[in-house]
Amino acid sequence: MTRIKLLLAYDGTDFAGWQHQGGVRTVQSVLEAAITKVVGARMPVQGAGRTDSGVHALGQCAHVDIPEPLASRVPWRVALNCLLPADVRVVEVAICPPRFHAQFNAVSKIYAYTLWTDRSHVNPMRRRFVWDVPPLDWAAMDEAAAILVGRHDFNSFRNLGSPLGSRGTVRTLMGLWRAPGPSPSETIWRAWGDGFLKQMVRNLVGCLVAVGKGKAKPADVRLILERCDRNHGLPTAPARGLCMERVFYPGDADMPERPADPEQVGPAREGAAHDEHFPGDGCPWPDPDGCGHLG
Amino acid sequence: MTRIKLLLAYDGTDFAGWQHQGGVRTVQSVLEAAITKVVGARMPVQGAGRTDSGVHALGQCAHVDIPEPLASRVPWRVALNCLLPADVRVVEVAICPPRFHAQFNAVSKIYAYTLWTDRSHVNPMRRRFVWDVPPLDWAAMDEAAAILVGRHDFNSFRNLGSPLGSRGTVRTLMGLWRAPGPSPSETIWRAWGDGFLKQMVRNLVGCLVAVGKGKAKPADVRLILERCDRNHGLPTAPARGLCMERVFYPGDADMPERPADPEQVGPAREGAAHDEHFPGDGCPWPDPDGCGHLG
Repeated sequence: MTRIKLLLAYDGTDFAGWQHQGGVRTVQSVLEAAITKVVGARMPVQGAGRTDSGVHALGQCAHVDIPEPLASRVPWRVALNCLLPADVRVVEVAICPPRFHAQFNAVSKIYAYTLWTDRSHVNPMRRRFVWDVPPLDWAAMDEAAAILVGRHDFNSFRNLGSPLGSRGTVRTLMGLWRAPGPSPSETIWRAWGDGFLKQMVRNLVGCLVAVGKGKAKPADVRLILERCDRNHGLPTAPARGLCMERVFYPGDADMPERPADPEQVGPAREGAAHDEHFPGDGCPWPDPDGCGHLG
Repeated sequence: MTRIKLLLAYDGTDFAGWQHQGGVRTVQSVLEAAITKVVGARMPVQGAGRTDSGVHALGQCAHVDIPEPLASRVPWRVALNCLLPADVRVVEVAICPPRFHAQFNAVSKIYAYTLWTDRSHVNPMRRRFVWDVPPLDWAAMDEAAAILVGRHDFNSFRNLGSPLGSRGTVRTLMGLWRAPGPSPSETIWRAWGDGFLKQMVRNLVGCLVAVGKGKAKPADVRLILERCDRNHGLPTAPARGLCMERVFYPGDADMPERPADPEQVGPAREGAAHDEHFPGDGCPWPDPDGCGHLG
């Protein structure tokens, strides 16, 4: 068996999320179905994270074990893109070491959440990818975002009723900042963290938008965070605005793009967390060691 | 009866075009169904142009006659947007003079065609709105576009087999130019003309892309244009990249945005045609005369 690493992009609108669920259309199930057609047997695909129903991805990562000689000889990117439906695309394929694990080796992820911030413009072509909001107080949102950045117990931003993993609810949010979107009517909030609880990004954005609307103050956000209790009444942002943009693995050299003046457009990332998670020279599988690009 | 003018935007993906056709989902039919729910009787809606199946719009225009007092009292924009499916939106509603005709009064239209020009990037969220093309020779395309601009018999760029209206096949193309799209992977070609034959924009873009691929030379485009015969073998661009962006009526003050240096990024519009169609002071229904905005 040879392990291959897949970089995936999908329009999540018509998927019931990433994860297998009996009888419904999920990204994992259509991907495994396509791989089964090539290999002739079902090979389980492991993703970096389980995106919710309706959540999109430009940089989901996954690994799968493929028997030789198929693993090395099949042009996987082209082959899978021929077999997959148009709303999932394989962006890149590489052979990786057998110990690589898409979920457990991920050191951080970036999610992007797109707000439609101008109700005087209307574009139904963007409706599946944005959350339309009324005019917002951006300065108050930036202040709230600065409070959320750091190593915290994010239990207040977890989906109610979701089971807790062994990692508990403490995570480091290295950054939470905003940037212009693809059109003047859109603003993107990005969250960069070492891990995210279920619906955490949607709850963070829901909280920021509540602050932007004046329904909560930045100081309330600190109380909500400290209370470690999801029952604070602030809404969860809808899935459609969310996109898993990037998963970082040890040795990935490129850092997330940050605004030049963090005070102006959002809080900066936390230096310590960065140093901890991006050693920069600790790649356990450099390219000469076998990370060749296929397909 | 009071005539109202509707400005419409739609994602054309799941529509069989604008025009009524028995049993299939068209923009005109869902719009008339929504109006029927308010008025209690079927009121025929007249569009500025009949977009093909899969073609989008950000600025389709239409008119419809509504009995009083409903015409003046209903908040039409809000009411229709509550009743319409999410892929059609009413952007603006205004009462207009009873002689206003969305199709016959239109003096020019702008269509935008979006090309996905970077195959090293993949984004399934844009698949419904772009035509993905290989690397193109932009200078050759600009040269071809300059040949197409002007008053010509566009019979070579007409859908084969489509019936000819009383206007014949001569149209003025005031401009055909390119601009950056919403992402670095996208380029938009805009066509501004006093009228377009069936599938004319898709045939113009298909021709430009053929030139960009080196399958035809700019000089061939002149021959094709002069031959006035659709059987020239150049492909029609797919519907999904096309969007009806704007319809101009007499008195509309705003001109289409044009690049500062037309030589650099595409051919300029034709001055004479502009003077003919945009008198600038000939508005037959200025605002004080009754074009109030509703809804």
